[in-house]
Amino acid sequence: MITVLSGGTGTPKLLRGLRQILRDNELSVIVNTGEDLRMSGHYVCPDIDTVTYLFAGLLNTDTWWGIKGDTMHTYHAMERLGYKEPLPLGEQDRATNIARTAYLDAGLRLTDAVRKITDAYGISARIIPMSDQEITTYVVTEDGTLMHYQEYWVGKRGNVPIKGIVRKAADGAVPAASPEAISAIEESDGVIIGPSNPVTSIGPILECSGIREALRKQFTAAVSPFIGRRPVSGPAAALMTAWGYEPTSLGTFQVYSDVADVFIQDVRDTEIDVPGAVRLDTMMTNVKKAESLAWDILSLFPRR
Amino acid sequence: MITVLSGGTGTPKLLRGLRQILRDNELSVIVNTGEDLRMSGHYVCPDIDTVTYLFAGLLNTDTWWGIKGDTMHTYHAMERLGYKEPLPLGEQDRATNIARTAYLDAGLRLTDAVRKITDAYGISARIIPMSDQEITTYVVTEDGTLMHYQEYWVGKRGNVPIKGIVRKAADGAVPAASPEAISAIEESDGVIIGPSNPVTSIGPILECSGIREALRKQFTAAVSPFIGRRPVSGPAAALMTAWGYEPTSLGTFQVYSDVADVFIQDVRDTEIDVPGAVRLDTMMTNVKKAESLAWDILSLFPRR
Repeated sequence: MITVLSGGTGTPKLLRGLRQILRDNELSVIVNTGEDLRMSGHYVCPDIDTVTYLFAGLLNTDTWWGIKGDTMHTYHAMERLGYKEPLPLGEQDRATNIARTAYLDAGLRLTDAVRKITDAYGISARIIPMSDQEITTYVVTEDGTLMHYQEYWVGKRGNVPIKGIVRKAADGAVPAASPEAISAIEESDGVIIGPSNPVTSIGPILECSGIREALRKQFTAAVSPFIGRRPVSGPAAALMTAWGYEPTSLGTFQVYSDVADVFIQDVRDTEIDVPGAVRLDTMMTNVKKAESLAWDILSLFPRR
Repeated sequence: MITVLSGGTGTPKLLRGLRQILRDNELSVIVNTGEDLRMSGHYVCPDIDTVTYLFAGLLNTDTWWGIKGDTMHTYHAMERLGYKEPLPLGEQDRATNIARTAYLDAGLRLTDAVRKITDAYGISARIIPMSDQEITTYVVTEDGTLMHYQEYWVGKRGNVPIKGIVRKAADGAVPAASPEAISAIEESDGVIIGPSNPVTSIGPILECSGIREALRKQFTAAVSPFIGRRPVSGPAAALMTAWGYEPTSLGTFQVYSDVADVFIQDVRDTEIDVPGAVRLDTMMTNVKKAESLAWDILSLFPRR
């Protein structure tokens, strides 16, 4: 079994490649929940849903979020009533969010609520939220106020100067990893940290207590999402700087240095020198290139 | 202007008749919110929405709830995920509920949230919730426990013995009428208490502080929903008995005795004698019969 640490962009493309090689029941995915939010009465988990829809064969791979062919009747009817939903949800996508919220309201842990939904979709891969706590990522704006990450990224489209990143659990406690996430790492033949945003997608997973410790005992390959100073996707550059790291593969390497046995950097990333990095083509512009990258990464794993 | 006290069944048929005679801007409707509930993260107002959709020309008049032609994609997708919504909502209907909840969460009074929605639908009638407080109706089951009215009526289909009715404001206070509801009564040429369930639809309105006092100063005609011991619609009989009144036009007359100047009883209701009642055909099986009843009621009003 291979365990993959994933956000909502970048890594899902690699997962699509891995699915060409491994059976779904040979894959566990620990998914970032640091961008979760409450909206329209729903508990929304953007990254979990992207990964879920990928494995269900429903993901809209034009946008890499939402369900392909989903209708938007409720969203447009709300617009006519004067309420614009910050993250537009289609009808089937909304169903996932309402059902999950109902399960949480009934007292289920997030891990179990997600499991109920992935079971209903017939998914044999293990999709595991990083934590059962409600953890929210905020950016610190220049005047020191906290702004929800989704408001920064979706609402303001990242056009706000920021100077820091803060993650908060709803109850103020240190974020704890889902026990299933720790088990998945321990029971794996190896772990891949996918090419997602280090600060908003992978960082929150690594910050959950127990995750770094488990990764240190396990073979871990990390894939940089950077080529030069340009983020492959997402507002990674500004966020990395605000987090205190250079927005490059070198900064990413530093974030992962205590846990990664192998660091993978794009062949085009020629201006940034990361000692010992393995150079691969990480631009997964189609499923064949994703499969090729997946093969290359798996070939680095210790022989089982 | 005429003000009508309405629930979600019975009275909307009379409103359809009144709209054939009066312009919408000559009508105010004070609507029961005692059956409101929170479901799927939405604040659901079944009666307000039925009246709103009637005036918007969108009401499904086969069922007398929901929007005609509305799709149910989210509802069915949730069923597939193992979550069955207690009150099925269509896509457009859900939009109304989500938008209202968003307005309430933003701090609007319910009266203003409803106004925003009726304005968006281009409705010129005034649709006014009876109260800005969250008021919930419970039935008292035989072992003395409280059961939400919707659970009793929709979930159990009324098949549970009950011995009482309890209404609670969320904050424990005595329910207060919306100021706009009091104004509507005061500014009217007369009031009609529609043929809705006295205990679950009209009772909650009358219990809001200030409503009975305002009605006593105003000409008020009340229409009985009963014919014999059979309720015209709704679980009125069992509820009336539990409330301490006979489930007949006579019991209804007693509930309204301090406020009604005229009491209207169906011509078929021959076994029940209500002193001074005006006998009319109250079976509004089509819009023409509803218009005819509306004419008959308005003819009883004092000349303006």
